[in-house]
Amino acid sequence: MSAATILHDRGVIARYRAFLPCIGPQTPVISLNEGSTPLIHSPKLSALLGRGAQVYLKYEGLNPTCSFKDRGMTVAVSKAAEAGAQAVVCASTGNTSAAAAAYAARARLGSIVLLPAGKIALGKLVQAFAYGSKVIAIEGNFDDALRLVRELGEDRTSGIAVVNSINPFRLEGQKTASFEIIEELGEAPDVHFLPVGNAGNITAYWQGYREWHALGKAGRLPRMAGVQAAGAAPIFHDRLVEAPETVATAIRIGNPASWDGARAALRESGGHIDAATDAEILHAQAWLAREEGIFAEPASAASVAGLLRAHAGASTAFPLASLPEGASIVCVLTGHGLKDPEIAKAGLPEIRTVRAEKAEILRAMGA
Amino acid sequence: MSAATILHDRGVIARYRAFLPCIGPQTPVISLNEGSTPLIHSPKLSALLGRGAQVYLKYEGLNPTCSFKDRGMTVAVSKAAEAGAQAVVCASTGNTSAAAAAYAARARLGSIVLLPAGKIALGKLVQAFAYGSKVIAIEGNFDDALRLVRELGEDRTSGIAVVNSINPFRLEGQKTASFEIIEELGEAPDVHFLPVGNAGNITAYWQGYREWHALGKAGRLPRMAGVQAAGAAPIFHDRLVEAPETVATAIRIGNPASWDGARAALRESGGHIDAATDAEILHAQAWLAREEGIFAEPASAASVAGLLRAHAGASTAFPLASLPEGASIVCVLTGHGLKDPEIAKAGLPEIRTVRAEKAEILRAMGA
Repeated sequence: MSAATILHDRGVIARYRAFLPCIGPQTPVISLNEGSTPLIHSPKLSALLGRGAQVYLKYEGLNPTCSFKDRGMTVAVSKAAEAGAQAVVCASTGNTSAAAAAYAARARLGSIVLLPAGKIALGKLVQAFAYGSKVIAIEGNFDDALRLVRELGEDRTSGIAVVNSINPFRLEGQKTASFEIIEELGEAPDVHFLPVGNAGNITAYWQGYREWHALGKAGRLPRMAGVQAAGAAPIFHDRLVEAPETVATAIRIGNPASWDGARAALRESGGHIDAATDAEILHAQAWLAREEGIFAEPASAASVAGLLRAHAGASTAFPLASLPEGASIVCVLTGHGLKDPEIAKAGLPEIRTVRAEKAEILRAMGA
Repeated sequence: MSAATILHDRGVIARYRAFLPCIGPQTPVISLNEGSTPLIHSPKLSALLGRGAQVYLKYEGLNPTCSFKDRGMTVAVSKAAEAGAQAVVCASTGNTSAAAAAYAARARLGSIVLLPAGKIALGKLVQAFAYGSKVIAIEGNFDDALRLVRELGEDRTSGIAVVNSINPFRLEGQKTASFEIIEELGEAPDVHFLPVGNAGNITAYWQGYREWHALGKAGRLPRMAGVQAAGAAPIFHDRLVEAPETVATAIRIGNPASWDGARAALRESGGHIDAATDAEILHAQAWLAREEGIFAEPASAASVAGLLRAHAGASTAFPLASLPEGASIVCVLTGHGLKDPEIAKAGLPEIRTVRAEKAEILRAMGA
């Protein structure tokens, strides 16, 4: 096999083209070799649950822009390039804008990020700027930004493709994470925990599991266990949240774009939706880093927070006791902890200074 | 194959155990599924070089702690655990402390980071803290911290294992990146560009290439092209640098621990050592993000800065014209751009605010 053949076989479009009907032979493949993220076994969560349960963490923070968004963006930007777009546009403060900017750069397309003036946290936009996005502030709120994004996309003469979550190609790419989990475990897991904000990911994972189950590549379907942040839990409460608030900014959504998809995934899979407090989410984030050596952004830790709530028997959580002995459980970690260093910095301890002597160090270590 | 078998086959010890003689059947494998990082083709660098050259970027920033250090740390911490250590210690402000902390957490070992008081940039230590390291400031300079680390390691009763670069197991793990490149290209590249600071990585890559060449797994050996930062270029100048200074903090080293290894790699491979200015390094970093959609920390970009210098015919650089038509060139990107967001933030532009109207956005985009 030639070098080119092997290299081409990386990235989710190359690996899963047969399962992405939107990708045709004429579609240019805009890829950064996303996907193929590790499924890391968690001995400590497994032991905590007992009864032979095996817990795995799908570490999506090891995608090229350090979040799961890359899976969808490779498909969305490839389709934009195929359609002859000159630029992509989104309204996003975080992971979506980073992924859009990176793939647009790769495709030689422009990228524009629209945001409400006065609400722009520069730290969150470091990646968008690094990848060369043009950030434009508008006089208005986030809904105004989204409305403008739609208007720009509907204008066929603008040459602008919308890559916000209304872009249907993104879910196509995101479903490939389910394929990887099935490949690695040799079967779908019993339960799949994941954070739920805009609900695109739970919709996409469920679609991926269903498709490969229908093809016989998995012998069963998992129960989907969605976890929202308590301050941004519209699906959990079954009502819009006007002013969503949570430390897990990546899931701070009051009116999820894929609400229907989430509802279907929960109903069809016999799943559950739960809500974890910010304290529970931050605890899960710190626990993962200190106990398993895995640093994930706060929103990511919502999946593990949900598992810990279920284990603790929190009333609305997933009934773990109903699972068989030796159940396999996957928790998705959607983004890397380095995405949100401010949160981690907030908890930095005082550092003690000692004399440069071995005995002093040993004493300080014990203290 | 059972699920456990497949999962175990991830991480560099699992994949390359046969080539890691220090790993015995009794060694506990402490892994975060590091390695298997993407080798991303760079169409734009390839086109720039012309003559059919193919340039690939080995994106080591997609290791679990976002730098190549994880490859060595999985071996070093596994050996520490095998030896019964209670804790690991290092003197490091950056990537080494992050990797040490993560693998120690995974192994249930303590981790200690020693640093000179008054020189501690908290932003660089976010990961060490997140993974639960104890950071101790000492009255003294970095050399004092290194001396103390050695003293702690030499005290057999302390139960402390040193994981600074004097730990020989780290190079064993780091050499596995060469194996992956050979596997993916089907052959060793013609030239291998990489940043050189402490010189452990150039030593390890060269060792890996030599070992697999000797086994017949590669038909040739690459020429090693090391790139130092101009303000921290002891190997380039062949003299100690008392006060190294560069924006590329990960290679800000005046007295490399693996100087001899670097010298041997350069001599034996027919390679070259070059020095790139901070301006050239930052230009390469920005270029990579904006043109290829790949965000790497400044030190990482030194490899590409070296390639661009060679292309421009900078006097001391690698003679690209001596390469055959269709040469393959690998540049290593040692860490992710999110490792050093302060550098990127320094260049953030002003953001323009416009009215929330489509025409205004289109006008702002053109501007």
